[in-house]
Amino acid sequence: MTALVNHQIHLVSRPQGEASVDNFKMVETPVVQPGDGEVLVRNHFMSLDPYMRGRMDDVKSYTANQPLNEVMGGGTVGEVMASNNPAFAVGDFVVGGFGWQEYGISKGKDMRKVSTERIALSAYLGCVGMPGVTAWYGLNQIIKPKSGETVVVSAASGAVGSVVGQLAKAHGCRVVGIAGGPEKCAIVTDEFGFDACVDYKAGNLEADLRAATPDGIDGNFENVGGQVFDAILNRMNAFGRIAVCGLISGYDGRGMQLSNVRSILVNRLLVQGFIVSEHMEFWPQALGELGEAVGSGKLKYRESVAEGLAAAPQAFMGLLRGKNVGKQVVRLV
Amino acid sequence: MTALVNHQIHLVSRPQGEASVDNFKMVETPVVQPGDGEVLVRNHFMSLDPYMRGRMDDVKSYTANQPLNEVMGGGTVGEVMASNNPAFAVGDFVVGGFGWQEYGISKGKDMRKVSTERIALSAYLGCVGMPGVTAWYGLNQIIKPKSGETVVVSAASGAVGSVVGQLAKAHGCRVVGIAGGPEKCAIVTDEFGFDACVDYKAGNLEADLRAATPDGIDGNFENVGGQVFDAILNRMNAFGRIAVCGLISGYDGRGMQLSNVRSILVNRLLVQGFIVSEHMEFWPQALGELGEAVGSGKLKYRESVAEGLAAAPQAFMGLLRGKNVGKQVVRLV
Repeated sequence: MTALVNHQIHLVSRPQGEASVDNFKMVETPVVQPGDGEVLVRNHFMSLDPYMRGRMDDVKSYTANQPLNEVMGGGTVGEVMASNNPAFAVGDFVVGGFGWQEYGISKGKDMRKVSTERIALSAYLGCVGMPGVTAWYGLNQIIKPKSGETVVVSAASGAVGSVVGQLAKAHGCRVVGIAGGPEKCAIVTDEFGFDACVDYKAGNLEADLRAATPDGIDGNFENVGGQVFDAILNRMNAFGRIAVCGLISGYDGRGMQLSNVRSILVNRLLVQGFIVSEHMEFWPQALGELGEAVGSGKLKYRESVAEGLAAAPQAFMGLLRGKNVGKQVVRLV
Repeated sequence: MTALVNHQIHLVSRPQGEASVDNFKMVETPVVQPGDGEVLVRNHFMSLDPYMRGRMDDVKSYTANQPLNEVMGGGTVGEVMASNNPAFAVGDFVVGGFGWQEYGISKGKDMRKVSTERIALSAYLGCVGMPGVTAWYGLNQIIKPKSGETVVVSAASGAVGSVVGQLAKAHGCRVVGIAGGPEKCAIVTDEFGFDACVDYKAGNLEADLRAATPDGIDGNFENVGGQVFDAILNRMNAFGRIAVCGLISGYDGRGMQLSNVRSILVNRLLVQGFIVSEHMEFWPQALGELGEAVGSGKLKYRESVAEGLAAAPQAFMGLLRGKNVGKQVVRLV
């Protein structure tokens, strides 16, 4: 095993505006044997998430900055190849945070074993992982939907949005998605079961959203920001709740203006930004419910799979441009 | 008494952009005697408040629209002149909602008796009235300040802002006001006891706010919106709370853009719009505390007094332009 090579992708420069492939560099290191109490994991899939873009900048954000000339951080799922830790056996499947590389070494604290009996391994990076818990938390703890209310979800075909909508439907809500393009919108309604989906690229965002929300909007799970958020603010009902999970339209060096701020006052809105890693007390319950829903086939999901570590930078830039459908992962094995 | 004339000001047209004197008309009606169970009140002071501007438009807002060709609505304080209601006696001082007129008739349901023994009658329109309770609610129920935190209040010399700052000081906070011009800023620090006040008209809003909030901002009582709000968003700390009470920079036909929306996500902010009339359950406690603080001299206030009903439209337009200091009232007697 000492002959094995561990390919890694490092961040080598910070983007000026849009991220580019030049910001990343492939690095080869030897795979080392685990030390005392350590586990060697071969990563099968790694996660690409919008929050990673914020970490690439050298400004204050909700996560620590990604250091230069180190492995890009991120979630991974893989298989234990060697173990000096009694909690993990060779062949165990594990969720970890090994980042953009093929192998990882851990003392096991940030790892958990998962079963692939009813749930595909990659789903633990998506709807039974951080994005799923994000959806669960924002919907249940901030929006708190009541049956009959209208909930609008932006980036509705994405890893988080697709789960938000399905959970809100289970609460008895009218659920309206916003997505880019007719293909994504068709998936949102036909596969994920949203009542309607507005194509924000069709050029009639405000009118289309009005038509899709005849009773206004009571809850908004916001992933996008900018014009999409503005259109939603304009349709909010009194005492509406907005969970601000992401503002991807303002990532990657793009500015973002908001015009309909007055709605916060006029409609006495609650607007709450959150990051799910600060609410670990909810993870066990959320993962339990999400795992059951996926295992039983009630909760549907989609994945966009990039093949091989070298494809990660391009896939990541595509994610920031909305080229993915569902959860964006990179397959490493 | 039948010979008496009741002067009223009606709204006769809706503003296109800025409100103007042409939107109002003085009307003379006879003063009528109270009927069964009714009370006749002579208004001594009437209240001018920014929310009135929203009511003048024919668009959805948090209050019902002001009907055309009727008396402009609003709070008043006055004296009972005649009573057929056992709950009120001639000579009683009362708070009511008779609007922009010299006399009013009421069955007494929307009136309450007040004592002028320790508190001036006009103060019941300000810090011991709706503006005071607004300050109390937004600070105590939304911002929930902790000792040592920094609270920033925009429109700090106004009827609401001046109370917010004094209450926050009593919670042990560092309190920073934002106001327009050196005179207002001097009042904010010297009379109202704020730790600092930033003059947003001085041309260095962002730098001055940074200097005044070396530890960032934990709570913001927002009355203004626009550039002031943007600068504040930029200085918010993680888990900050923002009570959105008013957005006066966007009233009176002026648009309002917000750029630093990203702070809501990055800092996991709570942003809550509110209107105090929807939280009547807090009024008795708030009025009790505010009355005690004013009566004992602990809570300071200022008033801008316009003389006579005919001065109301001009004074109201001045209020929307920040020409007042403290509570804007119109003296009628």
